This record gives sequence, C-alpha cells and structure tokens, in this order.
Amino acid sequence: MKMDNSPARGTRDLLPATVAVRDHVLARITEVYHRYGYQRIETPALENIERLQGGQGGENEKLIYRVLRRGLDEVVAAETRLDDLVDLGLRYDLTVPLTRFYGNNQASLPQPFRSFQFGPVWRAERPQKGRYRQFYQCDIDMLGEESVLAEVELIEATTEALAAAGLDGATVRVSDRRFLSALAQAAGLPEQAWTGLFITLDKLDKIGWEGVRAELPGRGLDTAQIDRLQETITGLRGVDPAKLGDRLAEAVPDLPDEVVADLAGTADALRALDGLDWEFDPTLVRGMGYYTGQIFEITHPAAAGSVAGGGRYDRLIGRSLGRDVPACGFSIGFERIVDLIEGAGSRAAVAVLYEADVPLPTVVGSARELRRDGRTVSPIRRRGKLGAQLGRLTEWGFTSVVHLRADGPTEERPLESR
Amino acid sequence: MKMDNSPARGTRDLLPATVAVRDHVLARITEVYHRYGYQRIETPALENIERLQGGQGGENEKLIYRVLRRGLDEVVAAETRLDDLVDLGLRYDLTVPLTRFYGNNQASLPQPFRSFQFGPVWRAERPQKGRYRQFYQCDIDMLGEESVLAEVELIEATTEALAAAGLDGATVRVSDRRFLSALAQAAGLPEQAWTGLFITLDKLDKIGWEGVRAELPGRGLDTAQIDRLQETITGLRGVDPAKLGDRLAEAVPDLPDEVVADLAGTADALRALDGLDWEFDPTLVRGMGYYTGQIFEITHPAAAGSVAGGGRYDRLIGRSLGRDVPACGFSIGFERIVDLIEGAGSRAAVAVLYEADVPLPTVVGSARELRRDGRTVSPIRRRGKLGAQLGRLTEWGFTSVVHLRADGPTEERPLESR
Repeated sequence: MKMDNSPARGTRDLLPATVAVRDHVLARITEVYHRYGYQRIETPALENIERLQGGQGGENEKLIYRVLRRGLDEVVAAETRLDDLVDLGLRYDLTVPLTRFYGNNQASLPQPFRSFQFGPVWRAERPQKGRYRQFYQCDIDMLGEESVLAEVELIEATTEALAAAGLDGATVRVSDRRFLSALAQAAGLPEQAWTGLFITLDKLDKIGWEGVRAELPGRGLDTAQIDRLQETITGLRGVDPAKLGDRLAEAVPDLPDEVVADLAGTADALRALDGLDWEFDPTLVRGMGYYTGQIFEITHPAAAGSVAGGGRYDRLIGRSLGRDVPACGFSIGFERIVDLIEGAGSRAAVAVLYEADVPLPTVVGSARELRRDGRTVSPIRRRGKLGAQLGRLTEWGFTSVVHLRADGPTEERPLESR
Repeated sequence: MKMDNSPARGTRDLLPATVAVRDHVLARITEVYHRYGYQRIETPALENIERLQGGQGGENEKLIYRVLRRGLDEVVAAETRLDDLVDLGLRYDLTVPLTRFYGNNQASLPQPFRSFQFGPVWRAERPQKGRYRQFYQCDIDMLGEESVLAEVELIEATTEALAAAGLDGATVRVSDRRFLSALAQAAGLPEQAWTGLFITLDKLDKIGWEGVRAELPGRGLDTAQIDRLQETITGLRGVDPAKLGDRLAEAVPDLPDEVVADLAGTADALRALDGLDWEFDPTLVRGMGYYTGQIFEITHPAAAGSVAGGGRYDRLIGRSLGRDVPACGFSIGFERIVDLIEGAGSRAAVAVLYEADVPLPTVVGSARELRRDGRTVSPIRRRGKLGAQLGRLTEWGFTSVVHLRADGPTEERPLESR
C-alpha cells in the first residue's frame, strides 16, 4: 500500500540540484568568512524551553516547537498544563543559542570572538508560499568588541561573502538605534511611543511620505512635529559620507557625541573600502528589540526586501553571562539568496553504461580508472532503447558516456546538454 | 544575574577546533562520494509521528522526541492521551526519511539513485559518556539497483572515503542475512528462534566460542547441533575469497544458488580492487531487522567496534511506495571517526595587533591587504602586556602577527606554536 510520502506540513525535501546550489553558495560564503577569522561553531537544535521563552525572541517565541518530556504517563492527569509536559524546544534563531554558547564557553574563546554559524531553525508559522517551517540561518557575530571595528568588518565581510556567492552589486544601508531614539525624543514623543514611530518610519519605502504622514498623528505627533521630522530625515538621506558626522550633529542636536563619532567612524572606514556601495539611511529600523547601536541591511536589485541584516546588541549577552559584553552581528538571508543564484558550476559526470553481460569486476574497474582524474563516474546498467536512455542520462546531469560491452568499451563521448 | 548556560541535558556545544576537524572530515568524505556520483539530499528534521512510529526503527522508536501540536489549549483535559497532543517527532535516523523521500520524489531521481545524506538525528537515550542525544549520521544509499554492483560500489566508495578522511588500513567484513538464515535453518531451528541465535553469534568476538556455546542451549540447540554450527562457521572464517562460492555451497548445502552467486560476485569484484582489505565473516550480524541480503561492516585498528556498517534492504521502500525497490546502504559512524582523526590542517592566520591610536581605516585597510593572498586575517586591539597577549594569540590559533602602530606597521613575524 502506498503511503502519503509528503514531508510534514510546511517543510520540504531538498533535491540534489537544490542542495548542490546551496552547498556551492555556503562554500563561497564560508571561504570568505574564514579569511576574516570567523570560526564556525555549532549548538544543539534543542534548547531548554525556559531559555527559548526568555523574552529575547519577541514574536518568534509564539512559534516554538515544544518537545514533550520523556518518561511521562501516556494518559495525562487532570489539571495538567501543557507547560508541565514540556522541557525542550527547537531553536527559532541562532542568536539565542549563541548568547548561551558564549556564556558557557567564553573562557576558551578568543577575544574578541568571531563566530560563524550556519544551521536550521524552526518556526511554526502558518504555511505560505516560499516560507518553510524549517529554514537555515547564516550568521556572523563579533563578541567582545566595543569599537565600530566590529560594524565595519561585519559589513565588509558580508558584502564580500555575498559577492563571492554571486550577488555582486549589493547596497549596504546603515543607521543607528540611538539616532532613531534621538529623533523620536527631538520630535517630543515619550519613550513608550517610540516603537510606534519606528514601525511607521520603517514603512516609508512602501507607503511613501504621504502614507507615513497619514499615520503619524495616530502615533502622537502634530503637523509641526511631522514637518520637522520629515525635513530632518529628508535632509539626511543620501548625505555625503564624508560629512555624515557634521550633518548629524546639526540635524539632531541632542544626539550624543559618541553616536556621532561612531557613525562618522564607520563612514570613514567604509569610504576607504573600494567598491563598497553603502549609504546612511535615516529610515532604517530593523525589527528586533535587542539592538542597541548601529543597525544595517543589505539590499540587492534582484531581491525584494533585504538579503542580509544585522546590528549591535550590547546588552543581550549580559542576560546570560551576568555582565554585559559588546556584541554585533550580521545575518545573511540564506534561503532568500539561494533562490537568486544560478549555476552552481556542475561538475563533469561520466556514465559508464554497461551491458548486462559485462563482468562486474570489469564494470567497477572501468569506473575506477575514469574516476582517477577527479571526475564523477557512475556505472549504470544498459536498459531499453539506447536513445531514450541517453536522454535520461542527460536529464540526470551526466555530461558524457562510456558504453561498456562484453567485447570492450567504446570511446567516451559527450552527452548533449538540453 | 548569571544563568546556567549549559546546553540541554545530553547535548553539547561544538567549539571552533572541534567543528574544524568535523568540517575537514566531512569535506574529504563528500569529495569521494561525489566522485562516485552520490548526490546529497536533505530531508526535514521533523517527520510526522506516525511515520517515525511505523515499526521500521526497532528500539529507536522508543527514543523519539515527540513534538506538541500547535494551537492546543494550555490546560489539558483530563484523560487526554499524550498521543493526542503530538503530531510530529524528530527523526532518529536518516533511513526512515530516505524511504519517504524516495517515495515522494522518485519520478525526478536518476535510476539507480545514488543518495548521500549527512545530518543530525535525535535519540532520547540515557546520557552517558561520549554518547549524545543529538548526533550526526553520514549515509550513502543506492536505490533501484538489484545487482551486487550496489554492494561492491558502496564498499569501495566508503573505504576510499574513510581513507581520504585519514583512516587508512580499514578492514571490511562481509556476510549475508540469507546465509545466516540458512545456517539457522540447517541447525534445525524454527524461524522464530533465528534472531536469538544471531544475537548470540554477534557476540562471538567479545565472548569467544566458549561463551557462545554456553548460550546456545538456551537458544534451542543441542550439543551435536552446536558442534556442527561451530565447525561450519570456523571453516568459513578467513576463507580464500577466490573459493568463497564453492566453499559456501559445500558448507551450507541449502543455501540458495542466488545467494552463493551474489557472494561470489561480490568477492570477485572486491578481489579486483587493489588495496582493499576485506574478508567474509560468517559471524557478522548487524542489528537492524530490515536487512534482506548482504551486510557489511568496516573496522579499524584505532577503533573499538565498527567505523561503518550497512547492508541490503530490498523490502523497506515498498512500505512507503507500495512496490518493492532494491536498496542498499552504508553508514559511516561519523561521531566515532572524528574522534580518531587529528590535524584538520589548520590554516595560516594573521593577527593584526593594532594600537588604540591607529585610525580604523588603516586597521581595516591593512587587514584587507594581508587577506588578499587567501590567508585568515583578523584585527585585534593591543591590550595589556605584549608578551601575554602574544601568548594568547598563539593559543587562539594565530600563526603570525603584524603589530600596527600609529607610525606604521612592523614586519609580520611568526608566532611560536606551543
């Protein structure tokens, strides 16, 4: 009896051609990150449920796959809460595990620690096209570095990694959470209203100033305040990087000197990097609540939305470690970029098409001989019509064929690709 | 406040040096398997619980991490069964997902399909030294090949993969489930008693003939039968491969001709492969109940127990697909072998040790320059006593250092490794 062989709802199987592209992209990214000294670590997929529900994950905490304790009675006693039945959950990101990892292993790690993570995460989201409940994240983080060396290096390395993977021509957008806060404060908003303002500003690209202005009275701003805000933001967009510090200090007089210095420092260093396309973007917000300083995003003409994003989160590790550790991270939207990248550079693959009467040692020996030069070689039994079989070999990715008969092999000949 | 930052019980964090060895070993194995045409696929970590509990996993089905359905009420109604709360589980091996994958994707896969899988699996085992609840499996399988080409190629490729990873000098042991069955039948045992006999025979290496003989009366054999069994097995151990077919036919007259032909065919092909060390081992059993034909194991002087194992399972895919598909697989004990392999070939890594007064663009620019030749280069701020800091750099794996001062860089100089 045939069963339903679909993967679990919202998940998917990855076929060889898809995996080949993913492996290719990952290898290119890894090579670049290794050159910058980022070291790959791995944490378990399962974490204690208390940690996953510790408040660091925002909305993602509602999407946790919760795992039953082992050894429970099969029939649940009265008055049991689900929480009582659960002790573990599947991680929904790589940042929560990283902060735990740092707390656990800090003594044996370099200072600063350059971390590289690549691995699956799980979120029980409503299934929708192109979004899956298991997907991969690809993060680098620098832990223990308080200066903007961290920001600059993460931006440089990630841009280079994307280019190596095939995404040339990306643009980096940079802002700072502290700039946004000063902006909200200058507009006269109480702190609890800031997030609302940021949410609206974040939509500027989509709804334009008209849409933003329509929302802002609901966020507690009057027309004069809105005018001033629009003027400040418009004046800072696309500002000459060489003048970023001065212009920021003028436009937002309450902005702390260190924020101005940090942004000017990032600007100076990024300017010195040939070929890096970047801009200060006063409307950049980024969703996660844990960011404390500069934030960044990378966009690419081929992709709607961003292909990478990150920022500084200086107070997150303190929750695990008991003392704050400066930290900054950048995450490549791996699932998004692999869909943009074609041509994984498939290798030459030879089919050894053997007739049924060829002795097995001959088949295996011929394949071994052809494999010596590093090519992919697979014996396949000759069956049915030759033309049809050669067509299938081409479909399966073989690039040439050797026909092996009892009286000896034919010359290797190329298979026409479709 | 400092939290407990240990990973969940029975799991572990993988530190950079450990990951580097694992990545190195995996890359070597992958390179070999690719040359044989094995294509990597991926299936989700979560599978529907009914499939995981379908009987294919034997004892492992008791060790499944079960995942709560989403959207349940937080208070559980009295008399609810745990089964009603669960719809998914974490996979405990890669074979159950592979059979589902083949059923789901068969139409678009080559014939035969050479599958390569590497990924984590989860088992809620009692924690013990060196065994973890999340661990990686590394499997190749050939699906759709009925001839012993499958067995021979899997053995050749896996031996070569192990050698490439650094495990030269492995020995392959081969047997056949059908040979064991014929042996049990010849001994006069009813079919339901065969498994008991196999379990005892499997211990021969550990407990010797004395131990085995002591157990066999409990398995339903009398002294004459035990003598005959011991004589048959002893006579077949270490038999000349060129004569394997003849000797088997003599020693176990009821052995079907096709089993003799298959084993002789495997022997002929393996004999033709230079440098492959293998033997027929009449006491090899392998645990899984789903094997239907030849079974194999690889041992290595450096490891207690086997470093790889596998066999033919011609009737497993039929349970998913509704029709039998011949299948044969070989699994490398990845977690076991990475512990045996040293020296992942660490790369040259340069620390750019910069004084606080060096401008950031200079720091980043120097690192960029040094990185051009492909080396790993990481800027690190100069702090504390120089000697102590150089010592830490060495500890962290740096092989040379450039000291960057405001008045310019010093020459690059090597760091002494410990």
